[in-house]
Amino acid sequence: MALLVQKYGGTSVGTVERIEAVADRVLRHKSQGDDIVVVVSAMSGETNRLIALAKDIQQVPDEREMDVLLSTGEQVTIALLSMALKKRGLDARSYTGSQVRITTDSAHGKARIRSIDTESMRTDLDAGKVVVVAGFQGADENGNITTLGRGGSDTTGVALAAALKADECQIYTDVDGVYTTDPRVVDSARRLDKITFEEMLEMASLGSKVLQIRSVEFAGKYQVPLRVLSSFTEGEGTLITTEETNKMEQPAVSGIAFNRDEAKLTIKEVPDLPGIAFSILGPISEANIEVDMIVQNVSVEGTTDFTFTVHRNDYTKAHSVLEQVAQTLGAKQVVGDAKIAKVSIVGVGMRSHAGVASTMFKALASESINIQLISTSEIKVSVIIDEKYLELAVRTLHSAFKLNETDGAVSEE
Amino acid sequence: MALLVQKYGGTSVGTVERIEAVADRVLRHKSQGDDIVVVVSAMSGETNRLIALAKDIQQVPDEREMDVLLSTGEQVTIALLSMALKKRGLDARSYTGSQVRITTDSAHGKARIRSIDTESMRTDLDAGKVVVVAGFQGADENGNITTLGRGGSDTTGVALAAALKADECQIYTDVDGVYTTDPRVVDSARRLDKITFEEMLEMASLGSKVLQIRSVEFAGKYQVPLRVLSSFTEGEGTLITTEETNKMEQPAVSGIAFNRDEAKLTIKEVPDLPGIAFSILGPISEANIEVDMIVQNVSVEGTTDFTFTVHRNDYTKAHSVLEQVAQTLGAKQVVGDAKIAKVSIVGVGMRSHAGVASTMFKALASESINIQLISTSEIKVSVIIDEKYLELAVRTLHSAFKLNETDGAVSEE
Repeated sequence: MALLVQKYGGTSVGTVERIEAVADRVLRHKSQGDDIVVVVSAMSGETNRLIALAKDIQQVPDEREMDVLLSTGEQVTIALLSMALKKRGLDARSYTGSQVRITTDSAHGKARIRSIDTESMRTDLDAGKVVVVAGFQGADENGNITTLGRGGSDTTGVALAAALKADECQIYTDVDGVYTTDPRVVDSARRLDKITFEEMLEMASLGSKVLQIRSVEFAGKYQVPLRVLSSFTEGEGTLITTEETNKMEQPAVSGIAFNRDEAKLTIKEVPDLPGIAFSILGPISEANIEVDMIVQNVSVEGTTDFTFTVHRNDYTKAHSVLEQVAQTLGAKQVVGDAKIAKVSIVGVGMRSHAGVASTMFKALASESINIQLISTSEIKVSVIIDEKYLELAVRTLHSAFKLNETDGAVSEE
Repeated sequence: MALLVQKYGGTSVGTVERIEAVADRVLRHKSQGDDIVVVVSAMSGETNRLIALAKDIQQVPDEREMDVLLSTGEQVTIALLSMALKKRGLDARSYTGSQVRITTDSAHGKARIRSIDTESMRTDLDAGKVVVVAGFQGADENGNITTLGRGGSDTTGVALAAALKADECQIYTDVDGVYTTDPRVVDSARRLDKITFEEMLEMASLGSKVLQIRSVEFAGKYQVPLRVLSSFTEGEGTLITTEETNKMEQPAVSGIAFNRDEAKLTIKEVPDLPGIAFSILGPISEANIEVDMIVQNVSVEGTTDFTFTVHRNDYTKAHSVLEQVAQTLGAKQVVGDAKIAKVSIVGVGMRSHAGVASTMFKALASESINIQLISTSEIKVSVIIDEKYLELAVRTLHSAFKLNETDGAVSEE
């Protein structure tokens, strides 16, 4: 008998039929003897409907009132799901974020959870009830309704699991797990049985949108075993744990992540003086532009080339800021490219294997794919390439690291 | 400078445009120096949408969860109206029923208000804020969300006005006041400037659907001056007060109320024994059928005819119950008629004027309208007539009591 926190996202509760399917699933788990806390999102489309109403009134809606408005979305779902559970003979009880005493700070729209009072939930669980909690919401110390920001229902799920010391936090979504890479790009992409929190964080930050980064961080911090599953199909999903799962000393790459959202900017032949990085990135940061990769080459004849990537939406703005910086610093030129892609190999095992990076570079070279930038961390190697080679690069790397083989480098069980 | 509680119903906040219009009106009052507490209903259609969702899941939805579900309707409106007020530069603050500490009993779907904590509202009003409260809802002592039943937003408005000792509770709706009778039946029906609580209660219970009976009772009990106005047009509306408004000794009929919702049943020649009324009405009541008028004629040769009216929807059911009763009691026969109408004259002044009833009967006789049943109270005389004469009867009485004359019996100011 386990205590499970199950979180169902917007598409999983998008219609009355889907809500009934969730209730069936909860009944199945409950019949097996598990205790269940369910966290639900708003029915898909509902949050957007409410935002549209608000924006019809205020272009930048008041933040406090926006939270009052948006929190109704999940409140509708908890009521409907509780009804569906009761129809099945289960004793269920719904809680808004405020009712379950999820206390947050007062940062409306992006509140952080401070504490959760588990007493009522414990009492309900002990009495055999299914507890149904509205995700994404809480209340500050003065009783003002707050929301955790989009995707915050995952955070609610993990936070409840941590507070209740649940055996597992199960995130039900419309995909059946975490894949070695995007199956739309590589046919033979394979679902991972297990992945570490660190790997998952890199996958998420690199564009695999299965889970919100914040909830993964949260789960990692509190060591809450997290499982991603589909609410549409049966299956074991992918378990995200602290355990490293690669056997033996095999060079382990868990997956290939990529994104097309970035653009590259280079300021050329800038005098290589102390403080130069700040002189360049300070104005970029002041213009509220976030920078991802940063690469500075070694100095040649007292000047250097300084390259960084930004979100593609910020490309034009960053370019004009950089033009001014170049003038001030006496740099030769600013060049940029918005048609780039970032491809990364991710794997906890690679930290002890220099060979992983060279395998990556060799595989790309074999397809004549030029690498424009390289950046590495303990558990990933990212490269920037011409956008047109993206799919080819991902397929090439997926096969170079044998990720399509079920007895491959990772996640055998 | 007055403290006003303004309640806006579903059609008054049915669209973003209507919400903006409400905000304009609040701004106008606020600019005149009044303190304003606004109570709002769910946007029209929203409650029905939510009920339909619930019934898709549970034919008889769980009452606790139904309240969780329905209360989201008003919560959406308080957020949107607060945004519209802030857009106009007013400082506004929304409260759900639970946040404003409207404490009720635990009778889900028909909860009664036990107490209201006015402290936060007072603080907000003192700080110049407009307080926006979700109507129709509260929370019980354990924090469970409750609703006051349909039309409960009026009750919320009156209860807040009573708790805050407001100068007036203004109920904004889609009609511009209380009329001498339904203007769709009598062209010359006239809006009343004033009416007493008792008269309003009779008008409401007799089918004038301007206000919920419960809110009128509540307002009368706490002597909260209640004003019915249109949110679509300008005007003074109708003030409902404790003052009797008829001048001098004129026989005062304030209005003509009517309904077509009833059906009449007669059990004939039933032995006239003590306890006979209970023997007849007990089984009716056990079948959950509400009875309105009850008339028992004087005994003739040891038997009597016993007649009562029920809601037309209950007619068939009541008829079959009564057939059984007739057999048990040895009554001669059960006859019934669903094609009847009830017409009533209402007015505080009539209690001292026997002439009022005879004026009524004479007027109906002059049009050859047969009276089937008569029932009287301190401030009304009701008659049951053939449904087909309803409009004729109402017009006849409206003119017999000179209700179309602006210097008529009532409401001169």
